Order: sequence, then C-alpha cells, then structure tokens
Amino acid sequence: MIVLEVRTRRRQEFVNVTHSVAEAVARLGVENGAVLVYSPHTTAAVVIQEGADPAVAADIIARLELLAPTGDPRYQHREGNADAHIKTALLGNDKVIPVRGGRLLLGTWQQIFLAEFDGPRRRELWVKAL
Amino acid sequence: MIVLEVRTRRRQEFVNVTHSVAEAVARLGVENGAVLVYSPHTTAAVVIQEGADPAVAADIIARLELLAPTGDPRYQHREGNADAHIKTALLGNDKVIPVRGGRLLLGTWQQIFLAEFDGPRRRELWVKAL
Amino acid sequence: MIVLEVRTRRRQEFVNVTHSVAEAVARLGVENGAVLVYSPHTTAAVVIQEGADPAVAADIIARLELLAPTGDPRYQHREGNADAHIKTALLGNDKVIPVRGGRLLLGTWQQIFLAEFDGPRRRELWVKAL
Repeated sequence: MIVLEVRTRRRQEFVNVTHSVAEAVARLGVENGAVLVYSPHTTAAVVIQEGADPAVAADIIARLELLAPTGDPRYQHREGNADAHIKTALLGNDKVIPVRGGRLLLGTWQQIFLAEFDGPRRRELWVKAL
Repeated sequence: MIVLEVRTRRRQEFVNVTHSVAEAVARLGVENGAVLVYSPHTTAAVVIQEGADPAVAADIIARLELLAPTGDPRYQHREGNADAHIKTALLGNDKVIPVRGGRLLLGTWQQIFLAEFDGPRRRELWVKAL
Repeated sequence: MIVLEVRTRRRQEFVNVTHSVAEAVARLGVENGAVLVYSPHTTAAVVIQEGADPAVAADIIARLELLAPTGDPRYQHREGNADAHIKTALLGNDKVIPVRGGRLLLGTWQQIFLAEFDGPRRRELWVKAL
C-alpha cells in the first residue's frame, strides 16, 4: 500500500490527485486488476469527476454547500464541521478503479480528486492494489 | 475486463443492466470473489437499487432533480450539464458486488442500473473481476 | 464470505458494526488486501464516518431527512419508504476497506456503520475478502 500526502489550501476544494495515483499504481506494480483509492478521513472524500473545466468541481462544492450549509444552527455536532461530515458521507471515501497493462483505466474526462471539506489540512490517501 | 455498451433513450433515466453484468461475470469466469462495475463517464453513475417497482428509480431521479435542478442559473460550468455532474458525483461511478459459485450475489430486491443524467447517449460500463 | 446479522431498533439509525467487521476479517484470514462490506438491501446503506461523537450520525440522518423527507406526497413509490431508497442510493451500499497484517486499516476517526432508513428490521451485511 502506498500513502499519498495531499496538502489542501482552502476549507473546501477538490485537489486533483490523478497523477499521484497513477504513479502509485506504477510503483505498486499492478499489472492487471484494480486499485483502491481510500480516504482515511471523515471530512474529506474521494471523487472521480471531470477535470478539464474547474467549474465542475466548483459547482459540486457550491451545490453541496446549499444542501448542507456550513454552520447551520441545526447541527448537533459541536466542532463546527458537521457539514463536512455530511458532504463526505454523500460523496464517499473509497473508489475502486480498473487497471490494465499497468495503467489506470479512467474514462476520457475522468480525473481523481481528494474532496476537502474541512481544510486547509495535511491529508492522506491510501492506494492499495486489489 | 468486459466492456458493456448501453444505449440510453432519455436525458435522465435508470437502465437496468443486471442481466448484462451477470453475463459478463459468467464470461469472465469469476468463480469466487467480487466484480467491479465501473462507469467511465462523469455524467452517468452506477446504482444498485430496487428494480421491482420502476417508481423507485423515478423517485430517485425526481429527488435529485429537486436537489440539483437542470439549468440552475447558479452553475458556473457552461455546457448545460452541471446538474448531471453533481448527480453522478452523489451516486458514484463504481460499485463492487460479491460473486460466489460463478454468480453475482445481489440482495433479493437489488438490481444494477446505469443512471443516465445527460442522455440520450451511447454509454459504456466496464466489468472487471477482482 | 461472512454474513453478519444486524438488528436495527429504529426507523432511521446508524448501527456501529466496526467490531463485527474486524472479527469477520480475522475469521476470513485476510492478511493483506482489502475487504468488501456490502449491504444486500435497498433501504439500508454502509457508511464510514466518525464514531466518537454520536451527533455526527444524528446530523447526517437529520440532513438526509431534510433532503428527502419521509412521506413526501410527491413520491410515486407506494410502499411509504421511497425516502429510504433515496437515502440509501445517496450513501451507497458497498464499501471497500484496506487490510494489512490481518487488520482493518481505518483512519483514526473512522468507524463502519450500517445506515438503517426503514427499520426496525433484521439486516445482513456481507463481508468478503478481495
């Protein structure tokens, strides 16, 4: 298993980790199979989405903020990041991606993102061959 | 890995692909393990849900449309399908399903769907033994 | 594959199954790899989230109830649990978790939950080595 370190810069942002995951796949020597990209956090998710237009990530973050606003007084969790837990639960923290010929098999428009909802922080992603 | 082709007929719909995935599992010769069903798209997801009553799929689509309406003027992505990206991110594009004795192990009411949010299109699903 | 039985006590609740999954991993003899935790249901999901403060689960349930209220008259599915199908689709029914040295590799704050949305019921979770 390879541990990727990801530095996030804002409270909420998508950080493109496609290149780092592809490198991890090469280092793990996965030839044919799949790879698990796992966020060990409860306020940061893993998402596979379009990377060409950064507006897509911005739209996803903005919509999640409408659905689960930061600081809604109805939250019971008192650490000020209940919204981040909800957003992470909605996007999920584990993604499985096929690998063939030693290469990540992503769709044409797909990129892999760490979705930060309670940054800035130092985050990890765990990459494991399946 | 087997590539399934799925033709969608409407902008938003769930297409039941359970039979095709089961056939792919047989062709892949998976005996005992699991299978990854992967959508290589950013506006079409994979969902495991009830298939007996088509109203369930209709309710999920209608609710997602309330949560992320088509054509909301607040979207920054200018291709007219920001809602489809958001809906796909919420449902996810990868599902892992157990296999035993060469057969997909689904729950009694579970069926596998490609969830189209920006059709009609020709879509693919990638089925990979794990 | 190991089948865990989970008794839920309320219509909507998160049941912490981390200990049972860890035991299943030991019984399966997974040394290094990953494990699939799979809900064979269409109204109960699997979620990995914070377990230290029960308010986090309460906040996720309450927010999902705002997003897809129980008994909304717009639902077409006539069994009274359309909301439970929607909530389950949003959280997902399959999670893959890394295993190393025979132990589940969860993040510091992560716990595994069965998310019940149409209880109380007797539920199953399927735990499968990958």
